[in-house]
Amino acid sequence: MAPLSTPSGYEALTVETLPQRLSALPDVVARVGPDPSSWSVKEVGDGNLNLVFIVTGPSGQLVVKQALPYVRLVGDSWPLPLKRAFFEYHVLTRQAVRDPGMVPQIYHFDETQALIVMEYLSPHIILRGKLIKGERVEGLGPALGIFCARTAFRGSDLSMTPADKKADTAFFSGNVELCDITEQLVFTDSYYEAERNHHTPELQPAVDRLRADPAVKAAAQMMLMRFTSGGETLMHGDLHTGSVMCTDTDTKVIDPEFAFYGPLGFDLGMLISNYLMAYFSQPAHRPADELESYQSWLLEVIEQTVAAFYAEFNQLWATERTGILYPPSLWEAQGQSSDGARDALLAHIWHDAMGFCGVELHRRILTLAHNADFETIEDTAARAKLEARSLDLGHTLLLHRPPDSAALIALAKAANAKDLL
Amino acid sequence: MAPLSTPSGYEALTVETLPQRLSALPDVVARVGPDPSSWSVKEVGDGNLNLVFIVTGPSGQLVVKQALPYVRLVGDSWPLPLKRAFFEYHVLTRQAVRDPGMVPQIYHFDETQALIVMEYLSPHIILRGKLIKGERVEGLGPALGIFCARTAFRGSDLSMTPADKKADTAFFSGNVELCDITEQLVFTDSYYEAERNHHTPELQPAVDRLRADPAVKAAAQMMLMRFTSGGETLMHGDLHTGSVMCTDTDTKVIDPEFAFYGPLGFDLGMLISNYLMAYFSQPAHRPADELESYQSWLLEVIEQTVAAFYAEFNQLWATERTGILYPPSLWEAQGQSSDGARDALLAHIWHDAMGFCGVELHRRILTLAHNADFETIEDTAARAKLEARSLDLGHTLLLHRPPDSAALIALAKAANAKDLL
Repeated sequence: MAPLSTPSGYEALTVETLPQRLSALPDVVARVGPDPSSWSVKEVGDGNLNLVFIVTGPSGQLVVKQALPYVRLVGDSWPLPLKRAFFEYHVLTRQAVRDPGMVPQIYHFDETQALIVMEYLSPHIILRGKLIKGERVEGLGPALGIFCARTAFRGSDLSMTPADKKADTAFFSGNVELCDITEQLVFTDSYYEAERNHHTPELQPAVDRLRADPAVKAAAQMMLMRFTSGGETLMHGDLHTGSVMCTDTDTKVIDPEFAFYGPLGFDLGMLISNYLMAYFSQPAHRPADELESYQSWLLEVIEQTVAAFYAEFNQLWATERTGILYPPSLWEAQGQSSDGARDALLAHIWHDAMGFCGVELHRRILTLAHNADFETIEDTAARAKLEARSLDLGHTLLLHRPPDSAALIALAKAANAKDLL
Repeated sequence: MAPLSTPSGYEALTVETLPQRLSALPDVVARVGPDPSSWSVKEVGDGNLNLVFIVTGPSGQLVVKQALPYVRLVGDSWPLPLKRAFFEYHVLTRQAVRDPGMVPQIYHFDETQALIVMEYLSPHIILRGKLIKGERVEGLGPALGIFCARTAFRGSDLSMTPADKKADTAFFSGNVELCDITEQLVFTDSYYEAERNHHTPELQPAVDRLRADPAVKAAAQMMLMRFTSGGETLMHGDLHTGSVMCTDTDTKVIDPEFAFYGPLGFDLGMLISNYLMAYFSQPAHRPADELESYQSWLLEVIEQTVAAFYAEFNQLWATERTGILYPPSLWEAQGQSSDGARDALLAHIWHDAMGFCGVELHRRILTLAHNADFETIEDTAARAKLEARSLDLGHTLLLHRPPDSAALIALAKAANAKDLL
């Protein structure tokens, strides 16, 4: 990749420089207090790309997220443009309208500094961490199922005017470099020895089996074409359990900088995939007497997420179908039910979701950016056994899509009982 | 629709004003001769949207195509922006690179006047007229099959870089108003009593049957979503037999102003649909002793178009797969065949093509812009009988896609033998 020049005036914040640099912003001062010397600043970025600071002052707290001109996980050998903060800001404003209260409130955006000052979610922690610890979140499935349905429906031709949808598609077409990461890492790198790949050594026989199958690669590349060329709605683009923050009863969605126009089923499929990896990893994290109950809870979350997605989608279909797609003039205005049309569309969305779920079950184990669910399992032989189940289910999903969440859960349970190495 | 202001400086050409207005253009003078008083000008626009002039001078001929700020077929009550000439110019330059020699050469483009000065194709005439007259064109199927394959493949992520593809997608997202025509007229208006619709009165029972089926509308709307949200390649966007000009041995493609990023199978499906309407209309145009032979030739053209599309696509797959989709690193570099992946992709393209073919078989009979194939049949009872076969085949294709061109042709023959009114 060609090196990117850093825009003039951009300077990465540090814990030391942040108070002085942000002390002139009324929105910041109003939240944390006027005297920057009274602020305390902590850098907490544990993601792969950015700086994240928590600023605490006498009046309150906030978060400052700043893009770095390279991939944090890799270093400055992998440049990444700062404009991703610009796209994140714009998608957050859309999500805030489409599913109010589900994303952090924005206090300030600075395009040159590629920084967003936003709500500090507290006492929320990253969902993935909670799932590794075996904690439950009340209302998790419904909150995320509804989020996926609302953002999908309201960002599509089911709801928007054609001119707005086309203009917004063009707008997010600029998010090329983040799409490039998804395109390579999620859809392609798993299926050959890409330079950036790594995987648990004991997993090798399962990796070899996967890569020996040309059909699974054909299915994965079809999903890549759906991703690059299926601009049905404005996706979050990276909706895994590390992009969700929860208390025991509240759920929020963060980090939509990978946003792009893509398939209606993308976010749902990626999310389900990450629930499933939490499920497969549990034998290494839970004592025997808690394992079955916690794994069952995770499968219930999947069922509830999907049920909430369908229920909310049906509700929006009945009440907000104002776009050019599936206009009521074709059914309701002629005294016909549009339920069949809606169910055919939902079947299409689910089919896509299961394909995306399949590739994600592979790439988090085989390519650059792994999941803590598996990565924190120190016994690599034990880890490989569990990872092999994820690879196996992904393989199944790509070749034979289950028709509904019950069938998916049956496949997950079957994979969870397999000894594959 | 809101009225559009005509850009300042724009003025529609007339037969009288054209010589003086274009006499200063070196590209024009070089083609037809320096003295505008020696030029003769004829207006020949028989399409639905634009002015088209043939200019003849002592040194040669050329064509001047100028957009009007409204839909010519309807009048100034339906404004349409002049920027469609800008998009036509840009898609022509891309097609000229992707399938050299298949589109008219451009001599001059004037964005303010929304006019393109281009090659005069002679003695080519519009293919639809030739088919109504029962004329054959040697090499027609191969030329158009290859055109569809080359423009589809070379305008997609199979060939382009992701950044170029995304930027070009954004560029053509501006062609909103022409997409709007396709979205309404092709996919939706057929299935309810839209204001602009008209159809042959005797066809009413068949129209009622079609509109009574909610499933066919669901399938048509799924194709609309594929059109609005399936940006796989830069489509011609309006590839019917009125957008093809031929001699008895040569074939060219014109009028790509509806260009937009859409499904790989769109142009192929629309083209096949228009061959099929020529086929169904023939009993009204041919004497009995020529009918069977000419209808058989039309079906052969369909077979040859599809065969050429597949053969050329396979060739490009083997030699030009330089994009991010289906990279050789996944198969060939691992000593595996990618034929299965290619055939799965071709099946996806064909499935889409048959769906688009189905909606086109309906809309040319039921909505605003009819085909001369049927429209020139003066006996409306006879016309309706033939149109009903087109509606019937479209209905079948939308609900049950035939797996290949042989199966499609069998369905067409069956429909051609039906008495539906």
